[in-house]
Amino acid sequence: MINYPIKRKALTKTTNYANLGMTLESDIEASNAYYLNHKIAVIHKKPTPIQVVNVSYPARNKAKITEAYYKTPSTTDFNGVYKGYYIDFDAKETNSKTSMPLKNVHPHQIEHLMHVEEQKGIAFLIVHFKKFNEYYLLPFGVLKRYWDNQKNEDEGRKSIPYETFKKEAYPIQFGYQPRLNYLKAVDLLISRTE
Amino acid sequence: MINYPIKRKALTKTTNYANLGMTLESDIEASNAYYLNHKIAVIHKKPTPIQVVNVSYPARNKAKITEAYYKTPSTTDFNGVYKGYYIDFDAKETNSKTSMPLKNVHPHQIEHLMHVEEQKGIAFLIVHFKKFNEYYLLPFGVLKRYWDNQKNEDEGRKSIPYETFKKEAYPIQFGYQPRLNYLKAVDLLISRTE
Repeated sequence: MINYPIKRKALTKTTNYANLGMTLESDIEASNAYYLNHKIAVIHKKPTPIQVVNVSYPARNKAKITEAYYKTPSTTDFNGVYKGYYIDFDAKETNSKTSMPLKNVHPHQIEHLMHVEEQKGIAFLIVHFKKFNEYYLLPFGVLKRYWDNQKNEDEGRKSIPYETFKKEAYPIQFGYQPRLNYLKAVDLLISRTE
Repeated sequence: MINYPIKRKALTKTTNYANLGMTLESDIEASNAYYLNHKIAVIHKKPTPIQVVNVSYPARNKAKITEAYYKTPSTTDFNGVYKGYYIDFDAKETNSKTSMPLKNVHPHQIEHLMHVEEQKGIAFLIVHFKKFNEYYLLPFGVLKRYWDNQKNEDEGRKSIPYETFKKEAYPIQFGYQPRLNYLKAVDLLISRTE
């Protein structure tokens, strides 16, 4: 009987899918594992680039890195192949209810996604509005428009309004398997650009 | 006049392209940089996966990793996009004059390249026969045939003969810019499979 309140809490948690997600990144990785296991797509998260400075060998065949530093990634976090299409994207979360700040995106990511589109790859962001628990696939074209317009003195703004997501992005449903079925949104994106 | 012998040495070095290459990996990375700068393709080496155990913060905003270990990669080293095609490969070097030992290839790499082909990506190895200074693009299909045949008791062998490279792989020329023009071999591979 002592355990009762804890048990009830656990039950509530498992029926609310939104609480399953620890972070956007782990939700995407779980979805990618589902896609891989079901032979739907081969999409992986790239490892975080690390500059190794010192390595010691305390035991045979076991290298221990004792000094290293995080490096700035030159590309996005996720890429892979889906039905012959090259897929490339990054994941962004925001606490804002009104817009996604452009400072969440790094200039080298814009440049990389631009190169990807030039090579006929599929480039986008997955954006999580945490306050609404809503997920969107934002096509790179829309992101690029706002990015370039930042410098415009009259109407330039440092964020993409939530309304733009409602109009120009593709909603992604949060579910059980896969957690984020973002390839459904990719299908829409492909069908509208071809 | 004292510098004369050194100068001559340097000259000899620059005319022999083979000496430019430090390692196969750096030659491929230099070629990828050339492809990127000339808007020919967007292909990157994935960072080495590292398991971070401990991080300290000796100075503000500067994380220092003090304990970490190398992890086994679950995919190949290189991937990207070229004219709408998803490209995925690994690089292998051998000192042998007669064959490429299959132990150079990890089972998870075979599995990954198989998944890539199922999704209509272009999967292969770049193999360097160091003794001949020869480079080949080995299509995944050929690699897979030898891999699967390893277990065959009668004719199974643990390596791919050099002769097979001569017959079924695509030679890659070593040059100045790009150092390894492997996309020329990819073009041939694409034209023969479509």
